[in-house]
Amino acid sequence: MSEFRYDVVGIGNAIVDVLARADDDFLAARDLPKGGMTLINASTAESLYADMTEVLEQSGGSAANTIAGLASLGGKGAFIGKVRDDILGNSFREDIRQIGVDFDTPAATHSAPTARCLILVTPDAQRTMNTYLGACIELGPEDIDADVIKASKITYLEGYLFDPPAAKEAFVQAATIAHEGEGKVALTLSDSFCVERYRDDFLKLLEGHVDILFANEDEIKTLYQVDEFDEALQYVRGHCEISALTRSEKGSVIVSGDEMHVVDAASVETVVDTTGAGDAYAAGFLYGITHHLDLRDSAHIGGVAAAEVISHMGARPETPLGTLIENKLKIKI
Amino acid sequence: MSEFRYDVVGIGNAIVDVLARADDDFLAARDLPKGGMTLINASTAESLYADMTEVLEQSGGSAANTIAGLASLGGKGAFIGKVRDDILGNSFREDIRQIGVDFDTPAATHSAPTARCLILVTPDAQRTMNTYLGACIELGPEDIDADVIKASKITYLEGYLFDPPAAKEAFVQAATIAHEGEGKVALTLSDSFCVERYRDDFLKLLEGHVDILFANEDEIKTLYQVDEFDEALQYVRGHCEISALTRSEKGSVIVSGDEMHVVDAASVETVVDTTGAGDAYAAGFLYGITHHLDLRDSAHIGGVAAAEVISHMGARPETPLGTLIENKLKIKI
Repeated sequence: MSEFRYDVVGIGNAIVDVLARADDDFLAARDLPKGGMTLINASTAESLYADMTEVLEQSGGSAANTIAGLASLGGKGAFIGKVRDDILGNSFREDIRQIGVDFDTPAATHSAPTARCLILVTPDAQRTMNTYLGACIELGPEDIDADVIKASKITYLEGYLFDPPAAKEAFVQAATIAHEGEGKVALTLSDSFCVERYRDDFLKLLEGHVDILFANEDEIKTLYQVDEFDEALQYVRGHCEISALTRSEKGSVIVSGDEMHVVDAASVETVVDTTGAGDAYAAGFLYGITHHLDLRDSAHIGGVAAAEVISHMGARPETPLGTLIENKLKIKI
Repeated sequence: MSEFRYDVVGIGNAIVDVLARADDDFLAARDLPKGGMTLINASTAESLYADMTEVLEQSGGSAANTIAGLASLGGKGAFIGKVRDDILGNSFREDIRQIGVDFDTPAATHSAPTARCLILVTPDAQRTMNTYLGACIELGPEDIDADVIKASKITYLEGYLFDPPAAKEAFVQAATIAHEGEGKVALTLSDSFCVERYRDDFLKLLEGHVDILFANEDEIKTLYQVDEFDEALQYVRGHCEISALTRSEKGSVIVSGDEMHVVDAASVETVVDTTGAGDAYAAGFLYGITHHLDLRDSAHIGGVAAAEVISHMGARPETPLGTLIENKLKIKI
């Protein structure tokens, strides 16, 4: 295998998160589907933002969170995504570069500002996301840096990337370039509403274009339109080289050909905010499989990373994940 | 395949259950290991019984409960086990025959009385069992009716049968007879303390003598001396044709060669008494696989049967399981 410069390159929406606590009535009054991700326009974003109190702003975006988690584990990552050349965009770029991630996608100089996701965290720790895509809709095939893709063991794509129209092309192009080389392609289904929007596209992608699939229970059931986790599990077995299926407190199930693992969730004292749980899991799992760890250990690293992220507000780790893994799992990384 | 007269013959300790509610202090004061099964002698049984209030007496015994569950599902079962020719023994025989199970093992006419299990159910619905084996220790190879074994699709053995010394021989003889014909042999590990007592024996049995294994998470981890469910899962894969591993509210995992299923638990409104949960699960699962149902449906039937049994005091179903399955699972049985 050739020398790779990156363990993983993530391609996704470059988004700044704006988090605030809210109760169920707040969601109900605004018709916001709890636990989901809703796309909103600029004016809705403005009025919703005005209603939020004690907000916490930090860099986010699903794939970007995963690459940040990978970096926190000591992995080498790159990110491709579109910000605008505005204050939020600059701070997004600075944040991700500061943790050692290469991020060189040119900023948009016209049109909409940098994307933001207004996240309401209810007392049950569930997060409800409202995304204004802004500059993300400018991402296109021309932003896919073939050298970066070719230099990455894994090209990791977020399903949310199907929302901005040109990004879909970028997505397919990246997968094609990765497979022309020796890289693998990983996809996260992102969100069950997202799966509903692009079900046929995702199913087509799974036929040959995706080597590693991440999905939570709702997403994989939605993808195969079945009522039961085990049914979805049987469908997905034949479709990807590796599928990592997360089930919240039930842990995760990993299936790869004849190999299957049922791995417990890591313990969490108090679940504060589930934002980024799936992103962190993917970070840990991808770190593991790009560092010759077996599937079970990779799943455990994902579990501990997810447990860290849900124990505080915000989607990115507060504790260096590398140290945490070594302490909790006694896996030298 | 030849015509079988029975779906399953169960071989186990013929025991009458004596159930009462108790709190944790009651257990602690008497050094009773919560959740386990402790063997007690006649005098301990007497003094413990004297301390129990508002007792409920009913026929029990692990394998006997499973055969009773099978009958409740409409399956055809037989039971082999040793009672004494006393009042408890007669009522045990009457109970199991009344539900259509053939039970013709001659009663002991000398020595100890019919076995009883003093079961303390704590407010958390956990059961702590204290078994006085009584006449069970009289079961020996001469009680294994070869015709019944040969006439059964599956010979089902409880691990508890290793406690009375002569029963161990009966156990091995039954397995040998079953395999001389076209029958399969199923084993339940019964209890993690039981596994500790007979670990080497059980491991030896799994090499070629057991086709279908039932175990809960604690039992299978104890058997392979591992900390993690997934490790045990990987060990057991190669050892039995089918393993059905139960995980309480996490449902069950079924593995059979390259086939693996992760099946959710059935919902239960209130868990009242977990006595017999594993026995009922085995009943449902065995019913399924002896009636050409697939492994997932068999696991679901097991789950619904277990859910019924834990929703009330006592180890045997109160609602006819056949009807319940048809209503809950829409599986025609």
